[in-house]
Amino acid sequence: MATKPSIPKGTRDFGPLETARRNYIFDTIRKAFRLFGYTPIETPAMENLTTLMGKYGEEGDKLLFRILNSGDYLKDAPDDIIMSKDSLALSGKISEKGLRYDLTVPFARFVVQNKNDIQLPFKRFQIQPVWRADRPQKGRYREFYQCDADVVGSDSLWNEVELLQLIDEVFRNLKVRVAIKLNNRKILSGIAELIGERERIVDITVAIDKIDKIGLEKVCEELEFKGIPKASIEKLLPFLQLSGDNSEKLDALSKILKDSEEGSKGVEELKWVVENFDSLGHYCGLDVDVSLARGLNYYTGIIIEVKALDVEIGSITGGGRYDNLTGVFGMPGLSGVGISFGADRIYDVLNSLELYPESVTESIKVLFLNFGEKEAMASMQIVKELRKKGISSELYPDSVKLKKQMSYADSIKAPYVVMIGETELEEGIVVLKDMFSGEQFKVSSSDIEKHIK
Amino acid sequence: MATKPSIPKGTRDFGPLETARRNYIFDTIRKAFRLFGYTPIETPAMENLTTLMGKYGEEGDKLLFRILNSGDYLKDAPDDIIMSKDSLALSGKISEKGLRYDLTVPFARFVVQNKNDIQLPFKRFQIQPVWRADRPQKGRYREFYQCDADVVGSDSLWNEVELLQLIDEVFRNLKVRVAIKLNNRKILSGIAELIGERERIVDITVAIDKIDKIGLEKVCEELEFKGIPKASIEKLLPFLQLSGDNSEKLDALSKILKDSEEGSKGVEELKWVVENFDSLGHYCGLDVDVSLARGLNYYTGIIIEVKALDVEIGSITGGGRYDNLTGVFGMPGLSGVGISFGADRIYDVLNSLELYPESVTESIKVLFLNFGEKEAMASMQIVKELRKKGISSELYPDSVKLKKQMSYADSIKAPYVVMIGETELEEGIVVLKDMFSGEQFKVSSSDIEKHIK
Repeated sequence: MATKPSIPKGTRDFGPLETARRNYIFDTIRKAFRLFGYTPIETPAMENLTTLMGKYGEEGDKLLFRILNSGDYLKDAPDDIIMSKDSLALSGKISEKGLRYDLTVPFARFVVQNKNDIQLPFKRFQIQPVWRADRPQKGRYREFYQCDADVVGSDSLWNEVELLQLIDEVFRNLKVRVAIKLNNRKILSGIAELIGERERIVDITVAIDKIDKIGLEKVCEELEFKGIPKASIEKLLPFLQLSGDNSEKLDALSKILKDSEEGSKGVEELKWVVENFDSLGHYCGLDVDVSLARGLNYYTGIIIEVKALDVEIGSITGGGRYDNLTGVFGMPGLSGVGISFGADRIYDVLNSLELYPESVTESIKVLFLNFGEKEAMASMQIVKELRKKGISSELYPDSVKLKKQMSYADSIKAPYVVMIGETELEEGIVVLKDMFSGEQFKVSSSDIEKHIK
Repeated sequence: MATKPSIPKGTRDFGPLETARRNYIFDTIRKAFRLFGYTPIETPAMENLTTLMGKYGEEGDKLLFRILNSGDYLKDAPDDIIMSKDSLALSGKISEKGLRYDLTVPFARFVVQNKNDIQLPFKRFQIQPVWRADRPQKGRYREFYQCDADVVGSDSLWNEVELLQLIDEVFRNLKVRVAIKLNNRKILSGIAELIGERERIVDITVAIDKIDKIGLEKVCEELEFKGIPKASIEKLLPFLQLSGDNSEKLDALSKILKDSEEGSKGVEELKWVVENFDSLGHYCGLDVDVSLARGLNYYTGIIIEVKALDVEIGSITGGGRYDNLTGVFGMPGLSGVGISFGADRIYDVLNSLELYPESVTESIKVLFLNFGEKEAMASMQIVKELRKKGISSELYPDSVKLKKQMSYADSIKAPYVVMIGETELEEGIVVLKDMFSGEQFKVSSSDIEKHIK
């Protein structure tokens, strides 16, 4: 038992400062969600495996954390499966629950299960941890938070505009400079249709996506290597060479895609969203980017991705429109649009740039030193009054050496220390020390509040 | 896939209203923790089983949710154990992690792991869910929240006083009438010592605990049945017949226990705590109760339990002093005192008594109806301004029939609805409807804020 305890790899403890910083991020996001009319739901950490399996692809199934059934779980497992030592087959017999892998599948499950109580459009937000048995590495954890906002049951593009405003609100409040990248799945389909390679949409978008890194020539080589005919690649060139501002890009796209009904629809939608978002004013840069191809198997309309401008890190927020959230649970045709803030990456960004307001790290406002029982009681009377006014304060619990008490004051970063010794008790005053300037004042206890403002 | 999805038994979904209500409770508790100078930490949902096992007794080990190892977990499991179909033995080979069972053991593990960074006294709070594979029943769930505050590294009884004040603060703010029951483990030891039954402390306290329910005579019968000699039972009678207010009970105890050093110390401690807590004034009733015996194997000083006065439910908060939090992780001698708010039971109490403030159920302040694209854009301009002022508001996304939009307004309980139709757009005004009174006003958009205050 004397071995030093540890935590599972890929998981983290958060101490007081870290938790305060993370809560600042969660609170900022939650406040914005509420301001925009999204309402909170919460779902259990554990879901039935029948709910989770098959929703994230074969690779995703392997990354689920499975809960071992309670009790004598082997009792009803077939002997031949046990004897075969086939882990995969046996896990189906000894495990019925898993930890949630994201917030989207639990949300879909929630909507279907509560469909009689839900009025559409339904705007929900959810801020909870998720778990993935991924190989841990820098910036990738086995337990991390997602902060999702979705509106389902409305096809209006105002929802898209509002979600972009929500992103804008959050990063403005966090003071993080970001670019919001926008695309529309219909534009990608239009491109593939136009060059006669409908089936190759994934290969094409994967290659296009690399243009910033490897350049136009190498992208064309890769497409050729993947078997896209030269004639098709030539037709792709105008897409790859889009330039100018958003409106110029959209005009160019509109011309190029005029013969694809789906592609034209995509351009039109994107244009509407960009123009209305622009009219309302914003803090974040907006960037139409036809190489953006996240969630290709899932999104059917707008695709959104947010990148930090001042830190090298992957996408810190993303989302898009989907048209079949709940089909897999037997409730087809429910469309919606949503975004997910990657709180753990946003935390990394804020840490890198040290963007926390001063107040986030402050644990307590006033620490009262302890000079003995009578003095402590007098202090506690004042502590009680300060707390009533919402000013966090505490008494150092033990009447020990001053040096030790002051070192505690430093460690908790208390901005003010109050001392009530025998003399002060007799005189009916207190000594208030400003820990930042080092100054000390003799004040009456009722004046403490005035001085610490 | 057409089967209706469900969630694991003993777990719960929380919809918007329920989540808002629960957040009201968590926020109230968190605010009090901060006001009192406790700082937040968070630990992972999963802990290594070596950390969890053996800390909650044999029964507790069985109630741990275990995580199946990832990948081919059977590969290295010994054949003989697999073939034996011994679930317990096999789980030690195929599972290394479990879900946390409470917040105390993870806290102890955290303190040991971070001991070089922690300055004592360390006041931490932690609000996180825990999981237990208990048989689900009314008021008992497999996933529920604990809200813990502890101070470790200080023996001062001011900590006890402060924790009582913290309890007082929380239930005053929640407007729940409660009684705080207090005992001291040393008093129980003193009683057992005095009647010469040191080893029978558990039997004695279990029986004493029933006095309210079954009466004095039946308690004595039960003690006799358990083999406590008649002479000892007679010595117990004065304890069982304590009456009067706290100070009278403590005086009586002081006399009865004068020959037990430990018992006397317990009475003295309790007296000090009660007197100082009384001097500072409080909302909750305080009740010295020698039958209180929670955490008998763990607590060494004060024992605290909180009962709701207006709802029949078990303890809704509890705690006490311990003198060896971290010994089991190789760091002996760290004492502390802590309390745990049972948020899920408090939630049940508030639901029974309908104690939520009006504002908790309110999802959004102002809903703008949608009369078409131009009108919607004008609405969104105002929505943006209201949000800047911190007033939650939204546009109904689709330009559909008024009836449908109004029914949405009702369902989300919006207190105000704003209508901007063609006429209003031309006149540069808006129609503001108070959904509570049914009144409608024509106002300028800049006056909305004034009217909804």
